[in-house]
Amino acid sequence: MVTPGPEQADPRTVDLGYARLDVDRVARTGDPEVVYGGGKTPEQVIGTLTALAGRHPERAVLATRLSPDAVQALLQEVPEATVDPVARTAVLGPIPPARGRVAVLSAGTADAPVAAEAAVTIAVYGAAVERIEDVGVAGLHRLLAVRDRLHAFDALVAVAGMEGALPSVVGGLTGVPLVAVPTSTGYGTGAGGLAALMAMLNSCAPGVVVVNVDNGFGAGVHAARVARRSGSAASMPGSGPPL
Amino acid sequence: MVTPGPEQADPRTVDLGYARLDVDRVARTGDPEVVYGGGKTPEQVIGTLTALAGRHPERAVLATRLSPDAVQALLQEVPEATVDPVARTAVLGPIPPARGRVAVLSAGTADAPVAAEAAVTIAVYGAAVERIEDVGVAGLHRLLAVRDRLHAFDALVAVAGMEGALPSVVGGLTGVPLVAVPTSTGYGTGAGGLAALMAMLNSCAPGVVVVNVDNGFGAGVHAARVARRSGSAASMPGSGPPL
Amino acid sequence: MVTPGPEQADPRTVDLGYARLDVDRVARTGDPEVVYGGGKTPEQVIGTLTALAGRHPERAVLATRLSPDAVQALLQEVPEATVDPVARTAVLGPIPPARGRVAVLSAGTADAPVAAEAAVTIAVYGAAVERIEDVGVAGLHRLLAVRDRLHAFDALVAVAGMEGALPSVVGGLTGVPLVAVPTSTGYGTGAGGLAALMAMLNSCAPGVVVVNVDNGFGAGVHAARVARRSGSAASMPGSGPPL
Amino acid sequence: MVTPGPEQADPRTVDLGYARLDVDRVARTGDPEVVYGGGKTPEQVIGTLTALAGRHPERAVLATRLSPDAVQALLQEVPEATVDPVARTAVLGPIPPARGRVAVLSAGTADAPVAAEAAVTIAVYGAAVERIEDVGVAGLHRLLAVRDRLHAFDALVAVAGMEGALPSVVGGLTGVPLVAVPTSTGYGTGAGGLAALMAMLNSCAPGVVVVNVDNGFGAGVHAARVARRSGSAASMPGSGPPL
Amino acid sequence: MVTPGPEQADPRTVDLGYARLDVDRVARTGDPEVVYGGGKTPEQVIGTLTALAGRHPERAVLATRLSPDAVQALLQEVPEATVDPVARTAVLGPIPPARGRVAVLSAGTADAPVAAEAAVTIAVYGAAVERIEDVGVAGLHRLLAVRDRLHAFDALVAVAGMEGALPSVVGGLTGVPLVAVPTSTGYGTGAGGLAALMAMLNSCAPGVVVVNVDNGFGAGVHAARVARRSGSAASMPGSGPPL
Amino acid sequence: MVTPGPEQADPRTVDLGYARLDVDRVARTGDPEVVYGGGKTPEQVIGTLTALAGRHPERAVLATRLSPDAVQALLQEVPEATVDPVARTAVLGPIPPARGRVAVLSAGTADAPVAAEAAVTIAVYGAAVERIEDVGVAGLHRLLAVRDRLHAFDALVAVAGMEGALPSVVGGLTGVPLVAVPTSTGYGTGAGGLAALMAMLNSCAPGVVVVNVDNGFGAGVHAARVARRSGSAASMPGSGPPL
Amino acid sequence: MVTPGPEQADPRTVDLGYARLDVDRVARTGDPEVVYGGGKTPEQVIGTLTALAGRHPERAVLATRLSPDAVQALLQEVPEATVDPVARTAVLGPIPPARGRVAVLSAGTADAPVAAEAAVTIAVYGAAVERIEDVGVAGLHRLLAVRDRLHAFDALVAVAGMEGALPSVVGGLTGVPLVAVPTSTGYGTGAGGLAALMAMLNSCAPGVVVVNVDNGFGAGVHAARVARRSGSAASMPGSGPPL
Amino acid sequence: MVTPGPEQADPRTVDLGYARLDVDRVARTGDPEVVYGGGKTPEQVIGTLTALAGRHPERAVLATRLSPDAVQALLQEVPEATVDPVARTAVLGPIPPARGRVAVLSAGTADAPVAAEAAVTIAVYGAAVERIEDVGVAGLHRLLAVRDRLHAFDALVAVAGMEGALPSVVGGLTGVPLVAVPTSTGYGTGAGGLAALMAMLNSCAPGVVVVNVDNGFGAGVHAARVARRSGSAASMPGSGPPL
Repeated sequence: MVTPGPEQADPRTVDLGYARLDVDRVARTGDPEVVYGGGKTPEQVIGTLTALAGRHPERAVLATRLSPDAVQALLQEVPEATVDPVARTAVLGPIPPARGRVAVLSAGTADAPVAAEAAVTIAVYGAAVERIEDVGVAGLHRLLAVRDRLHAFDALVAVAGMEGALPSVVGGLTGVPLVAVPTSTGYGTGAGGLAALMAMLNSCAPGVVVVNVDNGFGAGVHAARVARRSGSAASMPGSGPPL
Repeated sequence: MVTPGPEQADPRTVDLGYARLDVDRVARTGDPEVVYGGGKTPEQVIGTLTALAGRHPERAVLATRLSPDAVQALLQEVPEATVDPVARTAVLGPIPPARGRVAVLSAGTADAPVAAEAAVTIAVYGAAVERIEDVGVAGLHRLLAVRDRLHAFDALVAVAGMEGALPSVVGGLTGVPLVAVPTSTGYGTGAGGLAALMAMLNSCAPGVVVVNVDNGFGAGVHAARVARRSGSAASMPGSGPPL
Repeated sequence: MVTPGPEQADPRTVDLGYARLDVDRVARTGDPEVVYGGGKTPEQVIGTLTALAGRHPERAVLATRLSPDAVQALLQEVPEATVDPVARTAVLGPIPPARGRVAVLSAGTADAPVAAEAAVTIAVYGAAVERIEDVGVAGLHRLLAVRDRLHAFDALVAVAGMEGALPSVVGGLTGVPLVAVPTSTGYGTGAGGLAALMAMLNSCAPGVVVVNVDNGFGAGVHAARVARRSGSAASMPGSGPPL
Repeated sequence: MVTPGPEQADPRTVDLGYARLDVDRVARTGDPEVVYGGGKTPEQVIGTLTALAGRHPERAVLATRLSPDAVQALLQEVPEATVDPVARTAVLGPIPPARGRVAVLSAGTADAPVAAEAAVTIAVYGAAVERIEDVGVAGLHRLLAVRDRLHAFDALVAVAGMEGALPSVVGGLTGVPLVAVPTSTGYGTGAGGLAALMAMLNSCAPGVVVVNVDNGFGAGVHAARVARRSGSAASMPGSGPPL
Repeated sequence: MVTPGPEQADPRTVDLGYARLDVDRVARTGDPEVVYGGGKTPEQVIGTLTALAGRHPERAVLATRLSPDAVQALLQEVPEATVDPVARTAVLGPIPPARGRVAVLSAGTADAPVAAEAAVTIAVYGAAVERIEDVGVAGLHRLLAVRDRLHAFDALVAVAGMEGALPSVVGGLTGVPLVAVPTSTGYGTGAGGLAALMAMLNSCAPGVVVVNVDNGFGAGVHAARVARRSGSAASMPGSGPPL
Repeated sequence: MVTPGPEQADPRTVDLGYARLDVDRVARTGDPEVVYGGGKTPEQVIGTLTALAGRHPERAVLATRLSPDAVQALLQEVPEATVDPVARTAVLGPIPPARGRVAVLSAGTADAPVAAEAAVTIAVYGAAVERIEDVGVAGLHRLLAVRDRLHAFDALVAVAGMEGALPSVVGGLTGVPLVAVPTSTGYGTGAGGLAALMAMLNSCAPGVVVVNVDNGFGAGVHAARVARRSGSAASMPGSGPPL
Repeated sequence: MVTPGPEQADPRTVDLGYARLDVDRVARTGDPEVVYGGGKTPEQVIGTLTALAGRHPERAVLATRLSPDAVQALLQEVPEATVDPVARTAVLGPIPPARGRVAVLSAGTADAPVAAEAAVTIAVYGAAVERIEDVGVAGLHRLLAVRDRLHAFDALVAVAGMEGALPSVVGGLTGVPLVAVPTSTGYGTGAGGLAALMAMLNSCAPGVVVVNVDNGFGAGVHAARVARRSGSAASMPGSGPPL
Repeated sequence: MVTPGPEQADPRTVDLGYARLDVDRVARTGDPEVVYGGGKTPEQVIGTLTALAGRHPERAVLATRLSPDAVQALLQEVPEATVDPVARTAVLGPIPPARGRVAVLSAGTADAPVAAEAAVTIAVYGAAVERIEDVGVAGLHRLLAVRDRLHAFDALVAVAGMEGALPSVVGGLTGVPLVAVPTSTGYGTGAGGLAALMAMLNSCAPGVVVVNVDNGFGAGVHAARVARRSGSAASMPGSGPPL
């Protein structure tokens, strides 16, 4: 009844039955391949990840938004992958040499998964990354303690839920390009991250740019692209080896 | 205490106890009977579907929004039905000869269930249908590869979640009547499909019309009605036989 | 056709024709009389204000939300009133002796009218008040310069628009009772003050309480009540004389 | 790949691996330590609570938003803690002597958990507290029966869901500082507490301040701070001993 | 180019060129004719009102939502009409004898136009009406002073803006059928009347029914219909003569 | 730590430990006692229902929003109660003699639970009730078939989800007082009943009043109050005996 | 400082200084050129319209959303244009021969401008069009009077504000392809057309498709495309000559 | 009554009476001084701009969001300023040498003011900028014509209203860092730019970052910072001289 169209055969595509992979992205954008794990079964995640890694053996492939079951399956069945249960990510293949440096700042403990997703993404996308945790604005001394170090980075990612004030304060302290990530922590009117998102879009600090709620991956992609263009190759000790 | 009213006996109605069926729709609109499976038990779905099919043996009856349990029950208890677990549909009875052709374009893998529901609906409503998958705007070469074929259809259905940009791009490429379907894929501000819905309602391409989030059925009904009026009877090879 | 009810004669009410004044509030709450000027003509504002002042000659009466026309009319026709064109307020009658001290912090220039309304309200409600302006979080040094002085107040009011981060930062620096006031400055998603309101409701600093957008008056009432109960009578030099 | 930053060693912090505790809050704000239990495992709650209590043996530490599992674990493993299953709180260590008095009024049975959280918070933050339950505005005689007693408190907390009218009525009866807490009871448009929140932000009674939906903790913090500053040390019989 | 359809000639319709009037409503619903003045020019209002009055000389015709210009034009050009500038209404023709009694309660001065529109509507729709003003919940003594009289009415209309608490309190005092009308007074989150509307929809008093923001007309229609069915013909002195 | 207040002893209250019952409502409003079952355990529902029935043996007590577990428990443990699993209600005690008649119209099968809740409520509140099902506007012949009967009722309740058009069409056919009830059926933008609620609030038929989404109980209370005042005692055969 | 890019010279574009016109649309979509008048000065509208008409002398060019000033300017300066002040449109050049027939139904007087815009668009896009006005659902007899004629059209456009019920009722009467257009008439929650839009997206009649609020143009484009493909060339008398 | 605090004297501030200027921003962030003209009188804009330019003679100062009156006043009174009436900006002082290159793409004519604001900002912030206009996705050939040139830039800004699809398509064509700017063009659900904002936040192209509606300034700040770090000093001919 429903006729499959003939246009589906495309040399830039790998067909796994349950998904057709666009393996041309590297050529167009210079970025690695990524598997969005949301809504995929563990089998689909593993199949897609290994297929892409087979096609691009020279460079790490990233899987994000893994379910707990997919995390377990990957740990058992793909031991050569580097799995981060907090970030809900897996990486398969060699991490590229880092070029440029990014700091990922996060406000509170509940923001850790999103910050971790951003950090892993940055490394896979080819920049060095450092985590600076628990610098929420309600305890300002923690942020002020690191303020002088911020200028040395090529890009910053600031992750916060609740009222989302962290990027505004950081953006007033430094002119380094800054990406804000709202998280869906909180309750009541804060549930879903809308309060943090709106705060970041309305930041009084100029030049703050924003991604969708919980989108650590998107922030990491942008920050890594910025850092790669800005930074020197050997800018951070220890960031070269794979995870 | 609560008195049932006397007006309930109606020759245009079949009373199953748990539902009273309007079996007059064909006469009013020329369309087939449909069972909306949302919120119905497998027993109710099967009972309603077979009752309607018994009343209209000459023409396929459609059930949509089937739960996984209803899908299983139908596969076991009504083997003569054609069940599509992705589309969450069942069809019982002969598919009408196709008149006119519709293409269902979808942006990504997550949009497949809604696109499949639209495609099955189109066939049951009497038009030929072709699926064109994975033509999301972030990989424009895939859409451009099929652009010249779009003009040959009598109607188009464009299914997309996330930012819902696909109908705007398609609507700029062709003047074929186009129905846009937002899907509820995504997260954060995109959860629930509101971003895609608003994008489609505000398309810069003139003449794009929209249905509710995930309403592949409604888009299919409209597209089939348009195609049936426009197309010739034998316009697509292979679309005649039942599924 | 429409019959006025007989219950309208009430000794606790003054009827001006266009308004019936509740002159019993002092007895119930200990607070002064207030005229909400929004939607009132200059004549109505002047009539109401002077009627209330005549009824309560021992204590200042406050008018808020004055239109520019009402401000002009008051300046010309009621010279004994103290009119503040920025706060859009007028005060008629003796300011009570101040008891307790409140600081009103504001983030930016655009927040000045709301901060001024709060400050005038606090004085009329019987507490001393100090303005601390332009301490928005994007220039943190300005706020840090006054942080040690904050502990000496009996209550704080923090006024901010845009992303509304100021109360979160202030609330992390001190345990003094703090009222947050979102303002309707800004544009896009920030228009109307919703972003600031949501940020303040979701503050990561514990104990921050919030009033409606632009409600400097309400914040001032609460802060003055808190300060009056906490403070000693002569706590601030110069706050005794009327405005 | 991801380098931990060197700034993490901070004498004002206790690192538990899964959380770094800010143990400096007392010095900055005079308030006790608090563990937000939302999203924490029972093990994390117990570990954090006992670590903080060990650091501050002279003063009670509070845990809020406990899951049912955490409530059970605390009852079994930390018998010296005072656990309130309705309030979803635990308290470990000596309650400070009460200074000032707060009344927590609640509208209906469904508001009890939020009111209880506020009450426990007030006690741990150093003020005496009294519960006044089931005084919703649809049965006004219950509220009127206690109206004369309200003036004797140093602060009031009014907890209500549904239409959230309680604070407006209470705020018209007395000038005592009043914090309104919307709750997420209800259904339809009232689901999530938005109706009550908006009602409280728009109260016609002047000086009503508001916290986030279900935020009994935040209301309790503010009310206790206000009462401690206002009240005398021995103002309420029986509030001295620990829970 | 655009062909007018032949079906437009209808004996139940009067065609004025700029409007076709449905003069059959009386037969279907027993209610008077009404001109919705919103968006109409003074000429259109006068033309429509007089045309309808000419068709129904035995019974008053109502015009609502008049612009200030339409009010002036009616006062000058149709002196036999009864124009209410506050209610923004005009009535032309004899008011029907009143049957049943309705009280219209309003919370504050700003609610007067909506309450007045409800009251005029009730009279034109055939019930007696009494206004009870300024009984907002922040000054409860005013409402309590009239509580015993409420039981004598056949229906109640409660009009309030801001937090919209009035219907909940009234609905707890009496079982008389009660219609709640939110008004668009207020500012910030209260602008547009959404807070009051949501409060009324979520009233804790059972049986409160609601109309759209500022829809005094709709509430009046419902209340008059209820009162006419309930009440006796001569129930209120003085309500018989036309306005 | 938390002191229970002394005002709790009230002769108009029955204290069950987990709830204090307001048993004075009959005196104030003339209505029966009601147990809101949402969020209550089966034990609490049974305890409350039997306690209220014991206090008011002369008149039926109603329980609404029962969970499936509460339905089962009531069927087994309180066999003298009349339990309606679709309406999720239980009634204990004699139904009052019916006075006046109400029709409950519903659009589709999915609206049946809300319509059933309204119908049971109407009977318990003392009016006769008739159900008219499946009269949604997409099959207009079903509604037109009953239109002439509508005028004979004293009040109407119209229940609909999806686009909520039913009350507008019914309201154009008759002048009988009409209460509209939106239901939460549907998906996408219709999820939660907001589309139906907004449609009903904006009905082009004058005099339509609305209750909260799924609030069949509230609509039933209002309709029964209206009908009781309008109707004669023996107006409907068969409505006298208890359910 | 800002460098204009060299890519701007494009043979498919006409550069007027204040606008660059895409004159290639006909080739891509078969549709006429259109000038969106919103935000354009009368001079810009006239300049753009005449430039496009000069480029496409064989076929009418359409201008929409004209300001009152632009309407006046066109009437005076371009007398050969057909200007419709209600529809706010102008047409310059020969209307194409009509193929297929569309009916534009509208609910009330306030919907006339949007219905008129749809009708003019349909004619310019090459289909015959008939207006059917004032068929709102609150006066159902007017719609039922034309129901039998609806089947003869190739497409329908249903325009309605308020609760937007018209498309649901029409969609239940016929299977002709139907486009729904919400209008921004109304007030309170209906202001802006959101209620009507949501109602139409959630229509219980299958196959209803929707455009943005007030988008008569978009609905007309889609309907004309459908009708042109379905209809015969001489299907409606009188629709051939230009306006 | 209101005491000004003593902390206001700050060497990093210039006090103009109506504003206190933070002249320390350059030291903290390396960026130029900026005057936000929204809500400022022409006199205030000129005073602030010239004061800042006097303090920083070596570097251009930027004023944004100028009212038409401020534009006129600047043209007459500060002839040495470069005023852009479309961008609503003024620049006073020497433009810094450009380092790095940014392209500003815009979808339609209505997006020009926001794109122009971004472009001027980029130049003042020290990067070269090129405008690429009218590349909206409904006419894809215009965008495809410039696709190969995109890779040569150091950063991209994509400005679009309506459905906001442009950044998704551009982000699929290149890996250059990309900032998306929604504009408030459109009507109905698109009014205010919310549709475009949501589309951009939910872009299917990875790494797209977003600013507030109409915030061309913010996008320009971020893009210039990125480009300055990436680019070589003499990368674009002609960008050196001041505007």
